[in-house]
Amino acid sequence: MSSTAGQVIKCKAAVAWEAGKPLVIEEIEVAPPQVNEVRVKILFTSLCHTDVYFWEAKYCGECRRGCNSSPRGDHVLPIFTGECGECPTASQRKATCVTSLGLILTGVLCLVMARRDSPKMDSPFTTFLAPPHLANTLYSFWLPRQDQPCSPTRQSLHYQLRTIHRSWCHFECCKTQEGSICSGLWFGCCGLAAAEGARIAGASRIIGVDMNSSRFEQAKKFGCTEFVNPKDHDKPVQEVIAEMTDGGVDRALECTGSVQAMISAFECVHDGWGVAVLVGVPNKDDEFRTHPFKVLSERTLKGTFFGNYKPRTDIPGVVEQYMNKELEVEKFITHSVPFSEINTAFDLMLTGKSLRCIIRLHE
Amino acid sequence: MSSTAGQVIKCKAAVAWEAGKPLVIEEIEVAPPQVNEVRVKILFTSLCHTDVYFWEAKYCGECRRGCNSSPRGDHVLPIFTGECGECPTASQRKATCVTSLGLILTGVLCLVMARRDSPKMDSPFTTFLAPPHLANTLYSFWLPRQDQPCSPTRQSLHYQLRTIHRSWCHFECCKTQEGSICSGLWFGCCGLAAAEGARIAGASRIIGVDMNSSRFEQAKKFGCTEFVNPKDHDKPVQEVIAEMTDGGVDRALECTGSVQAMISAFECVHDGWGVAVLVGVPNKDDEFRTHPFKVLSERTLKGTFFGNYKPRTDIPGVVEQYMNKELEVEKFITHSVPFSEINTAFDLMLTGKSLRCIIRLHE
Repeated sequence: MSSTAGQVIKCKAAVAWEAGKPLVIEEIEVAPPQVNEVRVKILFTSLCHTDVYFWEAKYCGECRRGCNSSPRGDHVLPIFTGECGECPTASQRKATCVTSLGLILTGVLCLVMARRDSPKMDSPFTTFLAPPHLANTLYSFWLPRQDQPCSPTRQSLHYQLRTIHRSWCHFECCKTQEGSICSGLWFGCCGLAAAEGARIAGASRIIGVDMNSSRFEQAKKFGCTEFVNPKDHDKPVQEVIAEMTDGGVDRALECTGSVQAMISAFECVHDGWGVAVLVGVPNKDDEFRTHPFKVLSERTLKGTFFGNYKPRTDIPGVVEQYMNKELEVEKFITHSVPFSEINTAFDLMLTGKSLRCIIRLHE
Repeated sequence: MSSTAGQVIKCKAAVAWEAGKPLVIEEIEVAPPQVNEVRVKILFTSLCHTDVYFWEAKYCGECRRGCNSSPRGDHVLPIFTGECGECPTASQRKATCVTSLGLILTGVLCLVMARRDSPKMDSPFTTFLAPPHLANTLYSFWLPRQDQPCSPTRQSLHYQLRTIHRSWCHFECCKTQEGSICSGLWFGCCGLAAAEGARIAGASRIIGVDMNSSRFEQAKKFGCTEFVNPKDHDKPVQEVIAEMTDGGVDRALECTGSVQAMISAFECVHDGWGVAVLVGVPNKDDEFRTHPFKVLSERTLKGTFFGNYKPRTDIPGVVEQYMNKELEVEKFITHSVPFSEINTAFDLMLTGKSLRCIIRLHE
């Protein structure tokens, strides 16, 4: 049992005093875990565009509950949604645990932390996503069940896994088949991770789509066999892809959050069996528009949240794939910065210079 | 071999001299079947709203090919799409045979008939759907393969099957499970047929939705357990259904072609596992609109064409279900008229008075 058990502790956190403004490293106090919570020492983390979404404070509600448990010294992989095992999700292969998702989207998971993390501050502050990974030492976060804190991982797990677990598994819901399948992907790190998933699944052609052609060379490492830059064509990119693939791709993933890319992804799949999967987080006022005939011709549009992975159930298998070297994580890591330079990590991501930038939380 | 083999024959056909105007019964001449065609004596038929769509001439292209085969005296069930067994569709559980669908949508299947049916007429005319069922005697239509004319059926098959085969099978693609599943349905005869499918699949709750409350009593015969008339509520019908079902239905089918109903159907399914299936044929300029977050929360939107049934492969099983009295077809038949009163059949359908009206083509 840690000597800090039951104690208020101090740690450092990157605080956004104002939505969208540079983060400031502050020393905060953290109350002991309550029911259904656990303390975790965060060693490494990285960012994705969803962090930006929360940084801009697009989803924050009010506090409704707090809870308690004891740390056990396990190595764990914090994830941003839960798996309570009791809601209707439990019987389906889905990630949207109704209990957890409701808490995240109403901001409860954020503000439970905020209220209890800032006893000396004048006002509560929000965290990035549910497991507030932008703080450097022991931390508390809400868990739906006391018996299984987060997804237990192997002691030898490298920190790199954090860089990929939110991305790679999105491909799962595509059910890519070995052989004749080809896939249209809209890039970003998440898109490259999806390409990696397609590569592992044995897709025969993997078509990368990005407005930034300088990414194409890099994309080959992730299995991309062809590339399309929409800027190079006068016609919509979905028409270009349909011509390249005799009517359309079998599977398309949209990984940027651009609603226009979502529409292109749906409209570039083949009639009869094409499946488009939306992964990227759109803006609040976006509208997905298409002609209903494109649906009626037996296409499928679906969305994924955490790749439809049940975190407790499915993440250990991803870890196993990484440990067995089936899943290549290192190639996603292009930069590394100490915690004090976290704003550099945001800049690298927002300017498209990095794929994953590791943030070393104890430097 | 029929005495008319290889001969030009005369038959009666209901001709729309102008799109959307009342049909006129005309005597026409039909050339002998060419390669990949067969003559069929049409005894009975009925209408659905898709006939109206073609009556309004929204899809007609130009003629590209003609073909030939010989009748064998089989009883057959004409269907409106083909199954060539050779295009990529063959390996998937899908109805959109690329070969056949391409011909239908470009109007080739219509105009191959028209050109050859009207040698004495001043101008070509179009038919309703690919197997031109609105003509009363021996007829020719295109078949993708010579060895299997249409879907061969049992000699004892009753004419009623024609009333249902285009509707019922739409439910197949919903994969409704026995027990806890409940379904929101947008009515019309096709919606009632989908309810029948849900009933057979063992859905626990079947919610019918229609603007015409007088249909609700009738809908009980098809398995509907609850009803919603959007006119009775101040809020959108998807919100009413979500409240009735603790967050949304598991499966929703839209069977009218109204784009607003399509949007409601998608938005009334449950996050995480809800599937909405579009069946009804929309207008040419309609636009399906929704917030992409409704997709990202792990919902699925898909369309069906002929219920994703492969006609040659799957229709015999539907016939078997009917013969075994598992599929109740008779309750769909509300009216019957001779061929000369075909315009009455259109009126009955368009005013919502009939479900299926049998047209007796030899009276």
